[in-house]
Amino acid sequence: MNLSSVLEEIESDARQYIGRGMVADYIPALARVPADKFGMAVHTAKGQTFNVGDSAEAFSIQSISKVFSLMLAMRIADDERLWNRVGREPSGNAFNSLVQLEHEKGIPRNPFINAGAIVVIDALISVLDEAKDCFLDYARRLSGDSSIGFDEDVARSEYEHGYINFALANFMKAHDNIENSLDLVLDAYFHHCSLAMSCEQLARAFLPLANDGFSPVIADSVLTDRQSRQINSLMLTCGLYDAVGRFAYRVGLPAKSGVGGGIVAIVPNEMTIAVWAPELDENGNSVVGTRALELFAQITGRSIF
Amino acid sequence: MNLSSVLEEIESDARQYIGRGMVADYIPALARVPADKFGMAVHTAKGQTFNVGDSAEAFSIQSISKVFSLMLAMRIADDERLWNRVGREPSGNAFNSLVQLEHEKGIPRNPFINAGAIVVIDALISVLDEAKDCFLDYARRLSGDSSIGFDEDVARSEYEHGYINFALANFMKAHDNIENSLDLVLDAYFHHCSLAMSCEQLARAFLPLANDGFSPVIADSVLTDRQSRQINSLMLTCGLYDAVGRFAYRVGLPAKSGVGGGIVAIVPNEMTIAVWAPELDENGNSVVGTRALELFAQITGRSIF
Amino acid sequence: MNLSSVLEEIESDARQYIGRGMVADYIPALARVPADKFGMAVHTAKGQTFNVGDSAEAFSIQSISKVFSLMLAMRIADDERLWNRVGREPSGNAFNSLVQLEHEKGIPRNPFINAGAIVVIDALISVLDEAKDCFLDYARRLSGDSSIGFDEDVARSEYEHGYINFALANFMKAHDNIENSLDLVLDAYFHHCSLAMSCEQLARAFLPLANDGFSPVIADSVLTDRQSRQINSLMLTCGLYDAVGRFAYRVGLPAKSGVGGGIVAIVPNEMTIAVWAPELDENGNSVVGTRALELFAQITGRSIF
Amino acid sequence: MNLSSVLEEIESDARQYIGRGMVADYIPALARVPADKFGMAVHTAKGQTFNVGDSAEAFSIQSISKVFSLMLAMRIADDERLWNRVGREPSGNAFNSLVQLEHEKGIPRNPFINAGAIVVIDALISVLDEAKDCFLDYARRLSGDSSIGFDEDVARSEYEHGYINFALANFMKAHDNIENSLDLVLDAYFHHCSLAMSCEQLARAFLPLANDGFSPVIADSVLTDRQSRQINSLMLTCGLYDAVGRFAYRVGLPAKSGVGGGIVAIVPNEMTIAVWAPELDENGNSVVGTRALELFAQITGRSIF
Repeated sequence: MNLSSVLEEIESDARQYIGRGMVADYIPALARVPADKFGMAVHTAKGQTFNVGDSAEAFSIQSISKVFSLMLAMRIADDERLWNRVGREPSGNAFNSLVQLEHEKGIPRNPFINAGAIVVIDALISVLDEAKDCFLDYARRLSGDSSIGFDEDVARSEYEHGYINFALANFMKAHDNIENSLDLVLDAYFHHCSLAMSCEQLARAFLPLANDGFSPVIADSVLTDRQSRQINSLMLTCGLYDAVGRFAYRVGLPAKSGVGGGIVAIVPNEMTIAVWAPELDENGNSVVGTRALELFAQITGRSIF
Repeated sequence: MNLSSVLEEIESDARQYIGRGMVADYIPALARVPADKFGMAVHTAKGQTFNVGDSAEAFSIQSISKVFSLMLAMRIADDERLWNRVGREPSGNAFNSLVQLEHEKGIPRNPFINAGAIVVIDALISVLDEAKDCFLDYARRLSGDSSIGFDEDVARSEYEHGYINFALANFMKAHDNIENSLDLVLDAYFHHCSLAMSCEQLARAFLPLANDGFSPVIADSVLTDRQSRQINSLMLTCGLYDAVGRFAYRVGLPAKSGVGGGIVAIVPNEMTIAVWAPELDENGNSVVGTRALELFAQITGRSIF
Repeated sequence: MNLSSVLEEIESDARQYIGRGMVADYIPALARVPADKFGMAVHTAKGQTFNVGDSAEAFSIQSISKVFSLMLAMRIADDERLWNRVGREPSGNAFNSLVQLEHEKGIPRNPFINAGAIVVIDALISVLDEAKDCFLDYARRLSGDSSIGFDEDVARSEYEHGYINFALANFMKAHDNIENSLDLVLDAYFHHCSLAMSCEQLARAFLPLANDGFSPVIADSVLTDRQSRQINSLMLTCGLYDAVGRFAYRVGLPAKSGVGGGIVAIVPNEMTIAVWAPELDENGNSVVGTRALELFAQITGRSIF
Repeated sequence: MNLSSVLEEIESDARQYIGRGMVADYIPALARVPADKFGMAVHTAKGQTFNVGDSAEAFSIQSISKVFSLMLAMRIADDERLWNRVGREPSGNAFNSLVQLEHEKGIPRNPFINAGAIVVIDALISVLDEAKDCFLDYARRLSGDSSIGFDEDVARSEYEHGYINFALANFMKAHDNIENSLDLVLDAYFHHCSLAMSCEQLARAFLPLANDGFSPVIADSVLTDRQSRQINSLMLTCGLYDAVGRFAYRVGLPAKSGVGGGIVAIVPNEMTIAVWAPELDENGNSVVGTRALELFAQITGRSIF
């Protein structure tokens, strides 16, 4: 199968879905991204790359960064301690997170909802001196590109409008589930989310999850093969907000989305796929990106099921 | 790899976990099952079978039957209509179902929680004349064994103690999400749950899900390959109550459990695994069965991730 | 002050509010009541009566009957046992009761929500041989009118459409908070609700609550003075669904409403007021009736605060 | 009736309940208050005062201050606007406020839960230049004692441990229900709560609520008679956390409690009663104080019902 022509076919079909969603508008920096952007990149474990559309253009990866935070934390933080502080279950709750956090006394359901990622980042800060810099360095090494960086405008804007995240963090602090100062933790959180990367960079950076933990970019393992499978399982069960079940039903691949319109999916042992299209559905996932991944799975016959 | 010796190794390890859970005791028929039962059966898509322990002994499959109900419904009921009446998302809620059913106005989160299975069965009754008999016949054909049957004692006992299920069904009826009479629907529901099958029979009956929808027993497809993958995705995201995330993290295979202590797991395109051990953890899943499947995945290296 | 002219003034003002609410339409027997009915009756502890409008016309008292059930239960059932089975707190939850019932393991918040009244009636059935007849007899004696009766059409219709009440009762049965058969309890519940009474009959029947427990109709105490105050306190904190706070703020009197459009209010030690106007607000309370009582409180200066 | 001897009788009975509750310990300043303190003061509308025990000793009035905040806001803030931002219904929810705040999109249920009082204080800040000073001045004038003041240790300690309140305020800010800076609003909130007053001062300061809004201390009305009744109604339906129903049932008077162990109750048109005993029940209300008020109501026959 020629993946180049597959990607072209997908772009042409998926672009027809532009106009069916809404670009995130809770901060100006996201709201002004053109709605008709579309990029897609595939990177195989064997080293091949395929791209289409705006695949080289950087966008705000937002919650996709939660996977990097977790990868780093599973590498350097105490595993048992981490999983005592954050669950591994889908949140399963459309109307959501504060409710659940209260019922479960400050323990977030999983590391991919905001509250969970805040705990993961808090755990990183507890073991790293310059956690924010280390994280950026980690993302650069994974993608083999030292030019990627935080978008300070986005980070500042998120910070200024981030009342819900402050509410979540304060609530967890009240339940002794945040170890460091809230300002420090939330500053790091908003910076992680602000990371600007392209589909090509994302596809490359996620390769360890399609390669038993080995990063061909770094030429070293960044996770054990078991950890790699574990993170894939968390992406499958918790990676797409309250649409994980339908995404698994339609696409059948582990994936993580962000409100910037990006989604990264994994075909275990084979390849990574990054797609970007800014319009979101009512669950906060890229409409066109979801369609593109569904088509990719159908055409190539890839599915973990 | 010799699966026979793998199963023996697993039995010997897993049996050490006996005593860490509690046998379901809400009806007498389940409460009197000996806690130290352990059976396991593997059936490959290519026709090989491997068994250990009490693998030939029939037990109450309980919620595992929900997979058969769904397989049948996806075959004969209107697909779009079905998914308008029941969701495809993990319930994600330890304290559970009535709450969620109220928030979502009578639409259950997925077909594997009680409320969802009741809707699926209602859909079957709407299109089948003798739904209960058809269901039994379907299970017999899938397993190639006409001796299997409902356990009328269990069915009656469930009916007599099934106030929560009556509450769920009445609530959905109030929201116009049950089409047939409650007595008819719940009688069928309790009978489905009462089905008595052995690990060997279950492993055989689930083969279509490891075989692109094709049943080697019937020598025909009972699902399309796509439907087969879709059901596997639902098992992965919704098959183990509020422990789906941790099960996927530990075991990494689509599976469905029942409070009788059974769990059936799928290695897509390769094999089915049925395990039975009556003691349950706090989420209602077999303690020893979960451990056995975790070991199986580790030793054989099987995982969808 | 001339209460006759006060009532006339109120009728003329309150009638202007007709058209702002919706007549209950979940059963045909309620839906066909003309929206422009308006009746009001005052009965003083000293024996005077004042009436206006359709005050002699019987209507379905619905939840107002919950006060009679409680009065009878406080008289004949074990007090401590009763209050272990039902709470005394406002439900405070617009989207309600099943959720709360689940959180509180089958203990309803108070005796004036459906679940709570079902428990009260179950308690009556446990101590009375012919509970339904006793209840009717009690209502007749309180109002001094042996002609009042159940509306069998309403009772049957409620029974046939009462899925939510069946759900509540089944849920409580699952938590061992219903002692008798569900059919018996719910049949009694729907009959209590179906009681047809006029404003004049209601004002008379409620006199014990404005008279330290003494019924001038029966010429005997039916409650102790303390019980009378306790029931008034429950009406104030729990008598108007999720609008108790605003009703107390606007009207300032203990009261109980029903979806038939009736409201009975108490001026302790002085008088009872019954009003009827079928259109309901979004909380299920009579729009015109609430306005009429607010005016009554303002004009007469009556308020418990 | 001789109220002096009534108070002595009450003290002697109520003190037997010492040891049945727990002193609030979430901040050191509260935790170190001796558990056996007991004071009670009555002030009649006609000018008589009666005291017993530690009635002259200042304690942290905590949530009792919410009544002063509301009295001031009803006097100077726009009424309609205020009640659009905060409800008037009992919260009715043991497990509490963040959940409800999320369901109701940032609108607190009533002005006496923390979230509601934060909104009331925000409204004061929007119309007053030096809101904190104005509030202190208001409390001083009401009690006729310029020596009362904030306890800065308590205020600072609450601020430092006030993560839940910060969570609530951030959540409401996210829903545009806080107009001023969070730091300013919460600083004021924690200061209001830190107000140190004695039973005697409290009984005097609350006189307007027993006197149609007229303060004999100031010799002027601080509320209309209607506002006075409205605040009393809010105290009755919302003044005792999730125990309003049982308190009304047992005591039958409008009241407001604080976690410092104080409770102030109103006998409309007649007198105020302030009681203080630090040990709290599971709802956060003074055990001994509740008992003392129940006795007071029984012995004197006072009840609004």
